[in-house]
Amino acid sequence: MTSQLRKDHISGRWVIIAAERSKRPDDFRPGRPDERKPPRSGGFCPFCPGNEAKTPAEIYAVRGAGSAPATSGWKVRVVPNKFPALSRGEPPLRERQGIFEFMEGVGDHEVVIETPDHDRDMGDWPASHLAEVLDTYRQRLRALESEPAAKYIQLFKNKGPEAGASLGHPHAQIVAMPIIPRQIKEEIYSAERFHARTGECIFCRTILEERAAAARLVLANGQFCVFAPFASRFPFEMRIVPLRHGPAFSAVRDEELAGLSEILKAALTRLKSAAADPPYNLVLHQSPQPGQASKTWPQIDALFHWYLEILPVLTHVAGFEWGTGYYINPVSPEDAARFLREGPGANFL
Amino acid sequence: MTSQLRKDHISGRWVIIAAERSKRPDDFRPGRPDERKPPRSGGFCPFCPGNEAKTPAEIYAVRGAGSAPATSGWKVRVVPNKFPALSRGEPPLRERQGIFEFMEGVGDHEVVIETPDHDRDMGDWPASHLAEVLDTYRQRLRALESEPAAKYIQLFKNKGPEAGASLGHPHAQIVAMPIIPRQIKEEIYSAERFHARTGECIFCRTILEERAAAARLVLANGQFCVFAPFASRFPFEMRIVPLRHGPAFSAVRDEELAGLSEILKAALTRLKSAAADPPYNLVLHQSPQPGQASKTWPQIDALFHWYLEILPVLTHVAGFEWGTGYYINPVSPEDAARFLREGPGANFL
Repeated sequence: MTSQLRKDHISGRWVIIAAERSKRPDDFRPGRPDERKPPRSGGFCPFCPGNEAKTPAEIYAVRGAGSAPATSGWKVRVVPNKFPALSRGEPPLRERQGIFEFMEGVGDHEVVIETPDHDRDMGDWPASHLAEVLDTYRQRLRALESEPAAKYIQLFKNKGPEAGASLGHPHAQIVAMPIIPRQIKEEIYSAERFHARTGECIFCRTILEERAAAARLVLANGQFCVFAPFASRFPFEMRIVPLRHGPAFSAVRDEELAGLSEILKAALTRLKSAAADPPYNLVLHQSPQPGQASKTWPQIDALFHWYLEILPVLTHVAGFEWGTGYYINPVSPEDAARFLREGPGANFL
Repeated sequence: MTSQLRKDHISGRWVIIAAERSKRPDDFRPGRPDERKPPRSGGFCPFCPGNEAKTPAEIYAVRGAGSAPATSGWKVRVVPNKFPALSRGEPPLRERQGIFEFMEGVGDHEVVIETPDHDRDMGDWPASHLAEVLDTYRQRLRALESEPAAKYIQLFKNKGPEAGASLGHPHAQIVAMPIIPRQIKEEIYSAERFHARTGECIFCRTILEERAAAARLVLANGQFCVFAPFASRFPFEMRIVPLRHGPAFSAVRDEELAGLSEILKAALTRLKSAAADPPYNLVLHQSPQPGQASKTWPQIDALFHWYLEILPVLTHVAGFEWGTGYYINPVSPEDAARFLREGPGANFL
């Protein structure tokens, strides 16, 4: 069975029912979270050099001179997800059965194997390697934008089992979806209201206010700034926002990739030292596909401003959050930002 | 500092910044999730009999004859949360600072200490004790409904550290909030659209369709049914829905409490055996406060139909979910329901 997208008719939330994914290998979890094994070392890893034949056929790679596809010698490698949440096909139709709405699980699901080095994660790479990984994101996002079924493209990275990684080898994932997530629509609505009222981009204005207030600012360079959001859900949550307005990651410029790799490395290094190298999710927010979004929002390019979120896993989602969709955060973003700026010596509490 | 409610101006999501809560005791986590200690046994537990003086003053209790307040001899005990997310006060005003919106953290936060027995959780109690706990929920929900700042009341229970419990002793929590969560509004909007189209309650209709289809039905008795939702986010997710239409838990009848305790105990017992006693969240969904909701939705009593969710923690929330608000579920609800109905012998995959 391929996967199926299903809409919860009460909450309006879509889910992907992907039974194939229960067969994927798992470095960490045989069953329940508290019976978790430590990450395998010395065990078999399908993402390590030498095991290229164990993944689906390579889509894209950054390779040294003279290194052939499907062999070792790569620096970054992109393959289809072997256990995809969504699979390539014709744009799916919405179907109905009684009160229930669903569609075929059409889309795309790629894995970016970010480094040959199993043990070192993003914050520990040289900035030059990080820039090559970010360029790979950009190339794949550009390529997936041409898929007819893709209405929204979600790029994310899970680091550590508590952040949902099933394999310990550093990797990111890109899912092209046949629907625009409600959550992204809500962000567009906020931006639209703000733009109608002020003529400004809500994100550009946020950058100005955060830089002026300074209390939540963590880092800044010529192209990007990093701050702890005013309404952070989690301790040490960070948003990385480009200073130059642009709706999608795919249009990022070369000189911006250099600035982003510098600031992303610095942010992850600060997080590692502030919170004892926590598991985290790195999450891209961007405009829906240009062709899709401009039908509904002709001004989408002026409205949306892409950004990255770093979401450290230091708390658990609990009943309050599931019931309300709201979060209780025991660390104020002002304290978190000071600690991230000033290091473990900062007067934290 | 008391807590503060803050709105994320991009996503529209509110969070509670509650720095006091970082000081609460924690049976499980000294810092990061993967350095988690096993639950303390033999250590100090403020919820165990004999330690009544270590909690804030008792609000309500179910006690045997001759047992005095603030002493042992109770069966169920309700106290204010010592580290509250929200605290009692005048209904707060929405304040603004530049683009940011916030309000004082006013509301209420109670803890229901559900049993004197530190080690046995809800599924293992006699149904008669479970009925007393459910009656306690009902009494406290009724009492909190009269608080002027309360617009929505969220009852939930976190079992196990992965489900967000900080203490191992069985307990539930009730948070009275000064805003109606967006997520509850979305449920009302769905119910409103369905009611306008059909004249029916969307939940009553769901019960009919799930009972007719039977594929996702787990349990049913004269007052309640339990099914795996069509668009389940998580493996073995269940909804427990009363057959009799009613907007809020506080109006549940005595004979329904008996039916609910029977079916809730059965559902938790099935879950324990199907998924190796997983951590879980139990989450109430109900109508906003009658006085609040009827201003906006005059028909709210016909629209909303309270229900409970059991959300087992068998997967981790990962980057895809944080980016899109949508979920990838590796177990179909039809498989989950069959397994929960038929037990570990069922042909699962």
